[in-house]
Amino acid sequence: MDLGSVLVMLVVLLVLARIGSRLFTRLGTPGLIGEILIGIVIANLVIGDWSLMDFLNISMSPANDNYEILHLFAELGVIFLLFSVGLETRVSDLMSVGKAAMLVAVMGVIVPFVLGFAFIEVTGDGLHAALFMAAAMVATSVGITARVIKDMKLLDTKESRIIIGAAVIDDILGMIVLAIVIGMVSGDSSGGVSIASIVQTSAMAVGFVLLVLASAKWIVPKLFDYFQKRREEKIAKTGEAQSSVNKLVLALVVCLSFAWIADFIGLATIIGAFLGGMLLADHAWEWQLESKVESLMTFFLSFFFLNVGMQIDLAQCANASVIVLSLIIIVLAVISKYIGCSLGARIGDRSLDRNSRSIIGIGMIPRGEVGIVVASYGLAHNVLSVELYAVIIVMAVATTIIAPPMLSKAFRKKYPPEYKITADDL
Amino acid sequence: MDLGSVLVMLVVLLVLARIGSRLFTRLGTPGLIGEILIGIVIANLVIGDWSLMDFLNISMSPANDNYEILHLFAELGVIFLLFSVGLETRVSDLMSVGKAAMLVAVMGVIVPFVLGFAFIEVTGDGLHAALFMAAAMVATSVGITARVIKDMKLLDTKESRIIIGAAVIDDILGMIVLAIVIGMVSGDSSGGVSIASIVQTSAMAVGFVLLVLASAKWIVPKLFDYFQKRREEKIAKTGEAQSSVNKLVLALVVCLSFAWIADFIGLATIIGAFLGGMLLADHAWEWQLESKVESLMTFFLSFFFLNVGMQIDLAQCANASVIVLSLIIIVLAVISKYIGCSLGARIGDRSLDRNSRSIIGIGMIPRGEVGIVVASYGLAHNVLSVELYAVIIVMAVATTIIAPPMLSKAFRKKYPPEYKITADDL
Repeated sequence: MDLGSVLVMLVVLLVLARIGSRLFTRLGTPGLIGEILIGIVIANLVIGDWSLMDFLNISMSPANDNYEILHLFAELGVIFLLFSVGLETRVSDLMSVGKAAMLVAVMGVIVPFVLGFAFIEVTGDGLHAALFMAAAMVATSVGITARVIKDMKLLDTKESRIIIGAAVIDDILGMIVLAIVIGMVSGDSSGGVSIASIVQTSAMAVGFVLLVLASAKWIVPKLFDYFQKRREEKIAKTGEAQSSVNKLVLALVVCLSFAWIADFIGLATIIGAFLGGMLLADHAWEWQLESKVESLMTFFLSFFFLNVGMQIDLAQCANASVIVLSLIIIVLAVISKYIGCSLGARIGDRSLDRNSRSIIGIGMIPRGEVGIVVASYGLAHNVLSVELYAVIIVMAVATTIIAPPMLSKAFRKKYPPEYKITADDL
Repeated sequence: MDLGSVLVMLVVLLVLARIGSRLFTRLGTPGLIGEILIGIVIANLVIGDWSLMDFLNISMSPANDNYEILHLFAELGVIFLLFSVGLETRVSDLMSVGKAAMLVAVMGVIVPFVLGFAFIEVTGDGLHAALFMAAAMVATSVGITARVIKDMKLLDTKESRIIIGAAVIDDILGMIVLAIVIGMVSGDSSGGVSIASIVQTSAMAVGFVLLVLASAKWIVPKLFDYFQKRREEKIAKTGEAQSSVNKLVLALVVCLSFAWIADFIGLATIIGAFLGGMLLADHAWEWQLESKVESLMTFFLSFFFLNVGMQIDLAQCANASVIVLSLIIIVLAVISKYIGCSLGARIGDRSLDRNSRSIIGIGMIPRGEVGIVVASYGLAHNVLSVELYAVIIVMAVATTIIAPPMLSKAFRKKYPPEYKITADDL
């Protein structure tokens, strides 16, 4: 690793992300769209023999140090984002919208899967490709939505809670769907083993989430009370205020270890980080955790949105059939998630009005990095053609770009006075 | 890169660093000593076939992803530390101690160089090895001292300013010494070219520092006034407060780009970060930059101290001649820097009492990573034997461990009421 080259990359990317963010904020659009588009420009800017990627010593391969670092920073950025969302979410808030969130998640998985599967079966790309496309269309990526909601300071609304709760359940369902699809594709011969392992991983994921929820409700508050009491006793005895554990370090350890556990179980790291944040939600304010995590997030998060954009290789997309197919899949991805989730919201909670259902439907649209992971797996295992792979990447990035402006409009309609985007927020 | 493996490493290292820091804070010693010692344990803990380094997937080679990341985080940690020290240092403060700082730096370079050179010449390791040992004994690493001063909230004292000013000059002198030594060792045949390049790099380094000082004093305040005025005019015209550039992003860009410029010129990255911080010192408080940078520092800095300790390979040191030689070199390194710098302080500022001179002498003792860089260069170019290399590493780490407790005692003697170490600070 060449430290100088890493520093140049970080500085140039931070400056470009900032410019993109400012431009789009001025246009009244969430700044992260600008960051994603700047990412597309970075990955594709070639002038004669000179390319920005070469200048920054980045190539999109795991052997490239600078890309590895960019990728890690992107991951840490979205992990800290979801952790800070967790810090602002109490278990009771989430529990109160449990039924609606569950239905939103289930319907939001079924409708896209069926539509995606049907369409690719019709185009004649074969059963396996159809299964993978369907799986890639399932998994909502809550990072982008979380950022918009956080910037608009609307985490306290019922709609936001339903979206976040649904995203957690959606991730579990998406993992199960992917496991089943992989089982069907690879395990035609050894189907028996696959089912057992699918049941096992699903049970672990559900168990992990339930365990965290139960701990947050019953165990963690008792732990805090115990330490509080012990500390007070010590102060009473020695007459001196005993210094306590540095709260930010504690928070970081919780955040990163829960992200790791989720990854280990097969869930997305961000789901683990969110659950970890929720464990500390009751004390986040008192410990000033949010502003501290916010500083870390500011450093890392731009790299996440840049990296989303950098997945798009324009050369691969400059192909009539990819463009047509992408457009259709994007429309299908947007409509199916919107219909599925707003329908789920309607069944799950009769008190939600049309605006609220619309917010929920839109909030679940972004597929982001989860779809990309599915596509990469499909490509690596020769189930997806290079073209279908490109289509999924375009779909994942496009849904990420389309959703935020729609979401902020929908929120603005429902909560007009609260909403004001400022450049400092983005 | 395996994200799960990186997350495990980060969590385990953060927890261990925290434990080490807490233990030593309770003993009344700066916590960073605990972190360095934990680093030594991490690098050397082997139980049968199991080693902690294997468990964490770290090996001290540039091809190892996890070590690369640890190393980068360590660098960023100490860069953010010196940046935050810069944020609390105004140019005028530094200028007011200019003469004393200059003499402290010069005497602090001459005495260790002469002593180091003489000793290795006497032991018969040859002229080249003696030159390298002397160069490795020259360069003060201000990171550790900065941390102690910052934790004790004594950045405002005259002694602290002299130490920090001297550290900047010391780094330039150290660079020049190293360039000359390398020129003498490698360029016996092409001595002419070396002198020209030495003059050039020295001029660039001095020019860079003077340019930053001049900008901080004359150009930057005018820039701020201009933007402030433009903004007020805009507000007067539109009646609306225009949102401004996100201050933390601006600060990060300044910090990382100055670190890069310093690295490019041949100075230490931390000197660049310090100078960058000084440029923003007048606005650090208003923009709440310190607390924001502090959060970033908390995440990254533990890795720096761990990494210092991890440089020690106990197997390499378990050798009578290395132990004896190390002990002698450590004593020489401590005494020579102490005598040189306190003498420099005495000549440079007659108003400094014995306690103040003592603080300055001790504050300049740590060699840290700069000595290690010199040693690595010497080993790679076959000028230093593996044994002498090990001796320099041990000396660098040992001076880093020895100085902080002595420094906090010396400061406590001079400023008794202010000083109180709390675990939250460290």
